[in-house]
Amino acid sequence: MTIENKAGPVDNQHSKQSVLFTLPYTAVHITGGFWAGYQQTNRDVSLVHGFAMLEEAGNLRNMRIAAGLEIGEFAGYLFADSDIYKWLEAVGWELGRRADAALQKMADETITLIEQTQRDDGYLDSYFQIAAPQKRWTDLDHGHELYCAGHLIQAAIAWQRAVDDARLLRVALKFVDHIEALFGRNGRAETCGHPEIETALVELYRLTGDKRHLELAQLFIDRRGRNTMRGHAGYGAVYQQDHVPVREAVEVAGHAVRQLYLTTGVTDLYMESGEQALLDALHCLWADMTERKLFLTGGVGSRFDGEAFGGPYELPSDTCYCETCAAIASLMWNWRMLLVTGQRQYADLFERTLYNGVLSSPGLDGACYLYVNPLQVRNGRYVRASADTGTGEERLRPAWHNCACCPPNVMRLLASLSHYLATVNATGIQIHQFAAAQLAFAVQGEPAQIHMQTDYPWDGRVSLTVTESGALPWSLSLRIPEWCAAAAVSLNGRDIPSPLAANGYLTVTRSWQAGDVLQLDLPLEPTFTVPNPRIDALRGCVALQRGPLVYCFESRDQPDEVNLLDVQLLTEEPLSVTAVSLLGGIRTISVPGRMITSDWQNSLYRPLTKPTQMTSRQVQLTAVPYFAWGNRGMESMRVWVPQATQ
Amino acid sequence: MTIENKAGPVDNQHSKQSVLFTLPYTAVHITGGFWAGYQQTNRDVSLVHGFAMLEEAGNLRNMRIAAGLEIGEFAGYLFADSDIYKWLEAVGWELGRRADAALQKMADETITLIEQTQRDDGYLDSYFQIAAPQKRWTDLDHGHELYCAGHLIQAAIAWQRAVDDARLLRVALKFVDHIEALFGRNGRAETCGHPEIETALVELYRLTGDKRHLELAQLFIDRRGRNTMRGHAGYGAVYQQDHVPVREAVEVAGHAVRQLYLTTGVTDLYMESGEQALLDALHCLWADMTERKLFLTGGVGSRFDGEAFGGPYELPSDTCYCETCAAIASLMWNWRMLLVTGQRQYADLFERTLYNGVLSSPGLDGACYLYVNPLQVRNGRYVRASADTGTGEERLRPAWHNCACCPPNVMRLLASLSHYLATVNATGIQIHQFAAAQLAFAVQGEPAQIHMQTDYPWDGRVSLTVTESGALPWSLSLRIPEWCAAAAVSLNGRDIPSPLAANGYLTVTRSWQAGDVLQLDLPLEPTFTVPNPRIDALRGCVALQRGPLVYCFESRDQPDEVNLLDVQLLTEEPLSVTAVSLLGGIRTISVPGRMITSDWQNSLYRPLTKPTQMTSRQVQLTAVPYFAWGNRGMESMRVWVPQATQ
Repeated sequence: MTIENKAGPVDNQHSKQSVLFTLPYTAVHITGGFWAGYQQTNRDVSLVHGFAMLEEAGNLRNMRIAAGLEIGEFAGYLFADSDIYKWLEAVGWELGRRADAALQKMADETITLIEQTQRDDGYLDSYFQIAAPQKRWTDLDHGHELYCAGHLIQAAIAWQRAVDDARLLRVALKFVDHIEALFGRNGRAETCGHPEIETALVELYRLTGDKRHLELAQLFIDRRGRNTMRGHAGYGAVYQQDHVPVREAVEVAGHAVRQLYLTTGVTDLYMESGEQALLDALHCLWADMTERKLFLTGGVGSRFDGEAFGGPYELPSDTCYCETCAAIASLMWNWRMLLVTGQRQYADLFERTLYNGVLSSPGLDGACYLYVNPLQVRNGRYVRASADTGTGEERLRPAWHNCACCPPNVMRLLASLSHYLATVNATGIQIHQFAAAQLAFAVQGEPAQIHMQTDYPWDGRVSLTVTESGALPWSLSLRIPEWCAAAAVSLNGRDIPSPLAANGYLTVTRSWQAGDVLQLDLPLEPTFTVPNPRIDALRGCVALQRGPLVYCFESRDQPDEVNLLDVQLLTEEPLSVTAVSLLGGIRTISVPGRMITSDWQNSLYRPLTKPTQMTSRQVQLTAVPYFAWGNRGMESMRVWVPQATQ
Repeated sequence: MTIENKAGPVDNQHSKQSVLFTLPYTAVHITGGFWAGYQQTNRDVSLVHGFAMLEEAGNLRNMRIAAGLEIGEFAGYLFADSDIYKWLEAVGWELGRRADAALQKMADETITLIEQTQRDDGYLDSYFQIAAPQKRWTDLDHGHELYCAGHLIQAAIAWQRAVDDARLLRVALKFVDHIEALFGRNGRAETCGHPEIETALVELYRLTGDKRHLELAQLFIDRRGRNTMRGHAGYGAVYQQDHVPVREAVEVAGHAVRQLYLTTGVTDLYMESGEQALLDALHCLWADMTERKLFLTGGVGSRFDGEAFGGPYELPSDTCYCETCAAIASLMWNWRMLLVTGQRQYADLFERTLYNGVLSSPGLDGACYLYVNPLQVRNGRYVRASADTGTGEERLRPAWHNCACCPPNVMRLLASLSHYLATVNATGIQIHQFAAAQLAFAVQGEPAQIHMQTDYPWDGRVSLTVTESGALPWSLSLRIPEWCAAAAVSLNGRDIPSPLAANGYLTVTRSWQAGDVLQLDLPLEPTFTVPNPRIDALRGCVALQRGPLVYCFESRDQPDEVNLLDVQLLTEEPLSVTAVSLLGGIRTISVPGRMITSDWQNSLYRPLTKPTQMTSRQVQLTAVPYFAWGNRGMESMRVWVPQATQ
């Protein structure tokens, strides 16, 4: 394997503030196991499906109309172009992994169409070009023009880096020049109602080295918080992240995707500027999110209303929003915080969110997606995003969404997933996520390679075989997940002590020889988790986890007499894990519980003095990984279940 | 007192299906105590405030523009006229209680304005007249024209019945003729996206005896459920109660106010038609609401999203909607179900909803109103209806709302409250709600009067003094609230047995003499209530009630060291009730509890195997009636509190 110097989604090689650095995009290949399957489905099914959906929903036709190739009216939400860009970004990363004539052809058509749509002055937005040409840039609060531009830039970066194709980059740069002329240092002091362009512009700066791109990102960030944006449907400036200047923010609030795209961009800006006030605010926001507003799955966004963060400890399993895009935004932010700090907690949350809050979105067939990711569905009716539904209650994952932001977001993440496995610094390599993969890197100029083998997340053994190394000693650091109480490590078959550094990583430093094997064993005993007593929605309940996977109970897996509304889990009894071919090959967990029959059928409330008459019988319940739920129809499901009190 | 034959909001004297009958409007006077205070404030403050707000918000100006008296653009929601009609209805009932020159003048101006606004063809809707004259009746799903017409009819009925003023009735009848010509038996087979006109038309029929009015109500009801309405903001046909024909409905669903205005109208129709299929459906819907979707306060509507009923057992204290108008709609429905069945459960729910879910809306000063009525506010920020807010989080009751449906709805209810205290049948009188009041009625043609004296809901003693009676024996029936375990009854100072009939009422039948005193004593011991174990949001919690009042804990009433997030209630210790001058004169309840300090500060989830380190100290907590919350700023508040386990 040769190392080509092609960066991935984030290239912080030259950033002012980082302790860890991303590897070139082509330096890490997922070679098998869990994630290879997802990447294969993404490539073979999802990207093809996505292109068909972009045609069916009218996104591509919008572009053709705007380009003058077709006559018609604009269809869909005014940010429909962004779905095309995210899909293109995904295809770019995917073609960077391996060529594919069919995908290439779809993408070429699309790129050509985008080139044809762009106006001579650089402007590019099919909605305004078709429906309101005289209203360009008149409503930054709601217009999403800069948001779409941000996704165009990210797609352009992917195509440049992954496949050395500059066509989209030329379009993006021309658009950025147009934007910079209007909104640059001497331009209109405005910003977009939906953050996204900030992170894109910082990354563009990393690609181009053009200081104007960084400066523009900073301007867009600095202009936030004047509390002048008008909100959407009455939600107020907080919806658009305009309620408080970023340096003064102490709470994650408002529309969750907007909030986390913003923190992502601010972290990017901090990496380049080193401004401490930004990092201080980011730490404060991260603490607020993780200590008060985070679901067990890594999902965020407690409220349908405004697709928003709720108050502290407002974490309902049933009516939470937990938008897929918000979980992906959280990954993006956490990845950057990890680069900045080197602390395990960010990689831990990345893992939790990836395996649960994000992975619950795509159906196992790769051609349907959840938008909202609840932790409980009580009566077999899954409530979708209101903007996206006929009846508001569905029994199947939809193939696409009216507001289809989530599916192509999942696609671009899966296509670029290898980017997030490892980093390097001056002394060696750090493994953050475990997957069967080949990793090539260099330490002090000497090339090295590692082959990571694992059946994670089903099995906790991770073997790292050094297949190439220079003479100088270097460090191999492994994240020991916070959920793991007792990891064991051996080197070439001999146990070695495994003390963790303060940052939560275990590091082995030596002069590595080809053939050296470092083996990590993470015990994957199923464990019960309890919630903070302040979380009213979860009081008295436990959840089941195994390794990074949150489990859930679906009604169809339980004995006939079981109603998931009336069960309790026995947490003192042994649990058993079984590998099954179900759902693409998973491990189920068998959990003893009780089925309660009581006299509560016809009332909701009664005096404490009236004792509950109940009988219970022991039943054996079956849990499946949360990410796999709803693939056999949307029946009842719950992550949190009352704990039987003895 | 003479009995004038002026009916109140519902006049079922001649209805086909009723077991109880409403009294003439002027036959019941609230003479003092709790409700007299509310009525006085409503009259002196709220109605005057409401008129000023209708001017400030532009509702009256809309009418003037539509009448050609002023030039300008329409302001507010397109159903803004309905706020005027509800306010007028309130003033009508109020003037029926007692004349008031200032209110009369405001109302006269307004009625004249309405007369001037109505078109020659009978049409009347300021939005369409101003903003979209060519779009009249083109969008029944969203246009609210029939909804507004319904409120006009109800106001007209109030003015005719309460003060013998037919001006509004002429306007309404002219509009109804217009509507009937368009949508009557041979007209367009459509109906309104917001139920309301159905109940209004049935009542209009009761006033006019014109069968066309009843038939039109039936047509509008029968046309529902074709699943063709397009919803609002993507909520689908269920939002507008068009998802299922009323006779096939088995679940309360969709927009809560729309659902309960509809069931109210359907109950009215049943009263006139006696069609069993309607009653069967109503019983089914009522059971679904009360057994699965009702908050302890009587509030309904679990979701902000769509202002809607949620799924079964989805009853979150913090993120519930519990719109004031939905609670009022529930009162209206329950009143009619009581008339139809004579069963206590409807009067019980009326009481629960009135004292809690409705009464929490108006501020004690009568010049501010809650729209949304949560049972918990966690961090001092009350989340209002999104359509109605700047920042989405408020610290005070607002003086008015952009969508101001609730304030005038409260006003018309309070103004007509005497209507809901009692009913008669062939054998006597039934007391459903307890208030200091004078009641005049007739049994078999013989006039009778009762003077009810009570300090309810603070005190449980209700004395009924017969002040006039004919010679024939008649029955005096008293609702014994379901929450009351042991009522005591005495007649002229002597205890008498108090067996309840199957319908939940205690009846004393005799030849009453003037001076006879029937005394009811309802023990008002504070009691703890527990929730159905299926309600995940309330697991492990208890609520405190005293008589009909649900209590809550506001942070400002607790010792300094108490954080309401960290308390538990000790339910085995004695409680003490204290009369205080606070909040207009209430009873507080002192409750022993524990303040918990634990090591959970910086995490949301942990393994079950890691024990919680905690210390607790006993504290004395103070509860206030839920209806009075938020009158001293919106700090933290909760109705349900974890029960300390020993």
